[in-house]
Amino acid sequence: MPASQQAHDLRMTLWELLTQHTLRPGDRLPSERQLLEHLNTTRITLREALSQLEAEGRIYRESRRGWFLSPPRLRYDLLAGLPFHEMVESQRRRAATELLEAHETAASATVARRLGMAEGTPVYRIVRARSIDGRRVLYVEHHLRVDCFPDILAFDLAACSLTELYRREYAIRVSRVSFELGSTGLGHRAASALHAAPGSPVQRITRINHDQNGRMVDCDDEYWRHDAIELTLSAAPQS
Amino acid sequence: MPASQQAHDLRMTLWELLTQHTLRPGDRLPSERQLLEHLNTTRITLREALSQLEAEGRIYRESRRGWFLSPPRLRYDLLAGLPFHEMVESQRRRAATELLEAHETAASATVARRLGMAEGTPVYRIVRARSIDGRRVLYVEHHLRVDCFPDILAFDLAACSLTELYRREYAIRVSRVSFELGSTGLGHRAASALHAAPGSPVQRITRINHDQNGRMVDCDDEYWRHDAIELTLSAAPQS
Repeated sequence: MPASQQAHDLRMTLWELLTQHTLRPGDRLPSERQLLEHLNTTRITLREALSQLEAEGRIYRESRRGWFLSPPRLRYDLLAGLPFHEMVESQRRRAATELLEAHETAASATVARRLGMAEGTPVYRIVRARSIDGRRVLYVEHHLRVDCFPDILAFDLAACSLTELYRREYAIRVSRVSFELGSTGLGHRAASALHAAPGSPVQRITRINHDQNGRMVDCDDEYWRHDAIELTLSAAPQS
Repeated sequence: MPASQQAHDLRMTLWELLTQHTLRPGDRLPSERQLLEHLNTTRITLREALSQLEAEGRIYRESRRGWFLSPPRLRYDLLAGLPFHEMVESQRRRAATELLEAHETAASATVARRLGMAEGTPVYRIVRARSIDGRRVLYVEHHLRVDCFPDILAFDLAACSLTELYRREYAIRVSRVSFELGSTGLGHRAASALHAAPGSPVQRITRINHDQNGRMVDCDDEYWRHDAIELTLSAAPQS
């Protein structure tokens, strides 16, 4: 029997072992050594079974701290346009934001293409980490047109929603959003911000925000722990 | 240094080794034994590095056949409403569909809830596997209201788009779609249809299709090899 098949069979035994032992969401799993004492298997098959439970979103890893049982997923309606804190709190969860970086920089080729500007044009770069119930789940890099949002770095960027700031202080409304979604592995920088192991599965959501005049005013790269969200949307197809 | 960090560092060395050796998309990787001869590492770290490249969508596994280099992702516009074959062929790729199941059955609790009917109500179940350039990438289960689509099982369900059949034969247009998206691990049945290892990362897309009169007429559960697609959409937020 191939190794992945053995691991797939083991994973349900392992899952029952974990959930029978009164583990609750957010609790740490027993060590590999302790798990091996209860399971008739090898270390390599155990690790593959753990990875499969991670792919399913049932458990997750934190760097240097081990494996944990995943909390319930947040429902994230892509088109509702709700600020993060409001979305999280409306689902009776606790939200927090930390500002990691905020400075002016030169637009990379990717950012420039998305915002329809020349590479090297000045942009504001704002990087934040966001938590649900004390667990870091979202790493997000924003790039903003300087000419649309002069002096925005002077505001308290940890406490407020950027889209609300755009509306209140700059009379700019996000009127259309282009999304690109894919799943990938966490890079070093985002992994470190999420206290996650590099390479952990992540849901990437890139947003390009257009204002009421059709200008592309900013773009965001969101990296979510993939087990933290279920995305929803409802819309009319175009054809 | 933690194992996942070692593996993360190894993965780029491994990636360079693979792509320098003139491997092309769809090509099979050398065996673990051959890779270990070129890399100063352990089997367990190599396997973790392979899993990380899989999470990034750079390589994929086929059951009993080993690891392969991933082809480019298909761009899948969620709201364009394009039939699968048309979407694939417009990107100069080759599409194919195989019918795996087509029969009448009793609605499960989940299907009944989505379609607003009592559990156990008869529904048509249609299961298909779809390929791009000869690689199975999509396993999809459709559940249709029998009263909306009488005798639909008599049509050639491998050859045609269901939404086109709805329109042409039943005057039913899909006018609104509710989506739920998440990433998970492949179950046994879908894994077998995709020739994939159980537990491989997969992008799940559930669609509930509403007709021009607001009725929920069918629901689909799509399981995509996660490296096969990049999802896009463009829409106005609702607030």
